[in-house]
This record gives sequence, C-alpha cells and structure tokens, in this order.
Amino acid sequence: MTPDIIPIEPAPPLSGNAPPLLRELAEMLRRLVNTGESATLDLSALPLTPADLDWLREKLGQGEVAAQVQAEGESTFDETACPGVWWVTHRNTRGTVVAQFIEVTFVPELLKAPPQDVAAGCEHLEVLISEL
Amino acid sequence: MTPDIIPIEPAPPLSGNAPPLLRELAEMLRRLVNTGESATLDLSALPLTPADLDWLREKLGQGEVAAQVQAEGESTFDETACPGVWWVTHRNTRGTVVAQFIEVTFVPELLKAPPQDVAAGCEHLEVLISEL
Repeated sequence: MTPDIIPIEPAPPLSGNAPPLLRELAEMLRRLVNTGESATLDLSALPLTPADLDWLREKLGQGEVAAQVQAEGESTFDETACPGVWWVTHRNTRGTVVAQFIEVTFVPELLKAPPQDVAAGCEHLEVLISEL
Repeated sequence: MTPDIIPIEPAPPLSGNAPPLLRELAEMLRRLVNTGESATLDLSALPLTPADLDWLREKLGQGEVAAQVQAEGESTFDETACPGVWWVTHRNTRGTVVAQFIEVTFVPELLKAPPQDVAAGCEHLEVLISEL
C-alpha cells in the first residue's frame, strides 16, 4: 500500500469576510463625519486570512500620513487613502505583530501627548533650564 | 607683497539666542497645560545659527512619536523628550528644508484628517464598495 501524498498546504485564500468590512468602515466613517465619534475594528479578533488582510489593505490604499510610536515595541499608524481610516499595527519588542486594528478617527489617540505627560514635560524643561 | 591668507570660515558658533528659547518653550508648555492653547516658534524667522539649532534639538531630546506627511515634499513631526513639544521640518519636493518650527501642542494639526477630507473619503469608499 503506497502512502497518501501529503499535499503542500496552499496559502489560505480569500474567505469572503473582508468585503463586508469595507461596508462597515463606510458606516463608521459616516458616523465620524456626522457625530465626531471614533471607532475601531480589531482585525485580530475577526476570522480573516492573511489574503483577506492583504486585500483589505490594498483596497484601502496608502494616504499622506504615517506615524510610529516607540513604547515597548513599535506601533505604526498609517493613514489609508480614505482620510480618517488608519491601519494600526502593534509589535512587541522582538518585532512580532501582536495586534492589528483599523481605526476610524481624525487622529489616533496614541499620537496625542497625554496632558499628564505634558505637565511632567514642563518640569523636565524647568530642570534643563536650571542647569543652563 | 604676499597675498593675505584667506582663512577657512569656521562654523558659526552658538549665538546665545537659543537658551532664552527654552524659557519661552517652558512658558508655552505651561499655557498648553493650563488653557489647552497651542503655540509655534518659527525657527527660520529667528536669528539662530546651525550650532544653535543643534544645541536646541539635543537639549530637547527625542520622544516616542515620529510622523511623516507626504504632501508636495515631506514634512516630519518628531516629538521631543518633552511631550507636547514637537520638532517640525518642512521640505520641498527636492528634499530641501524650507521651514523649521517647534510646535507646542498635544498633536500637530497637520496629522489630523481634515473633516472635509474625511467626508470625501466616505464617497471614495462608497465607490470602492460599488465596484465589488
């Protein structure tokens, strides 16, 4: 009896779950325009294949703004060709992707300096000045 | 008569104009914390030598957030080690620095998607969806 040939597993194809997400994003974007309300899709929590993610990213395109935040690993915030729609990737200190989101917002919250940090920054600057 | 030796011009040294700017920044940062009011120093409009700019940049240090905007040349927005203080450089399409600012703000205005662009992005997304 010859053993069955074990096939090389092909890359998982498009699941069909990505196109409805575009409709959901359009709805979220309308809400942002009308009410100022931000929203987030947690891509890691959805049944999406790598091919789905590539398809989504390609459909959304590349916008004008890109930002990086270094805080226990790098997070990247890439505006898509739809202003207000941001592709967000969080990596750990080893560079492994730990979470991926699409944020629908004027500017991602993590790009803003938190007021308590700005207050601390004031003191940092006072120290610098006292050392001049 | 031997000609005078033309000396190689040394790099312009510190002018003494940079330290007072740190005090001005501390004042602007206090105003941001207390009133939410943003402010900008136009470094190109001040009598600063390249050595002054290097000194200022080194004193302010490097923060967690860096962002780039591609729009008729690249603009970079680098948060300094004082949260709320951003070093901003605008370049033309040939990569030449055309303006340099220090912005004191929670997040630079140019990183935010303008509401009218978000509204246009809604329509762009509707077109994408109609083509599925």
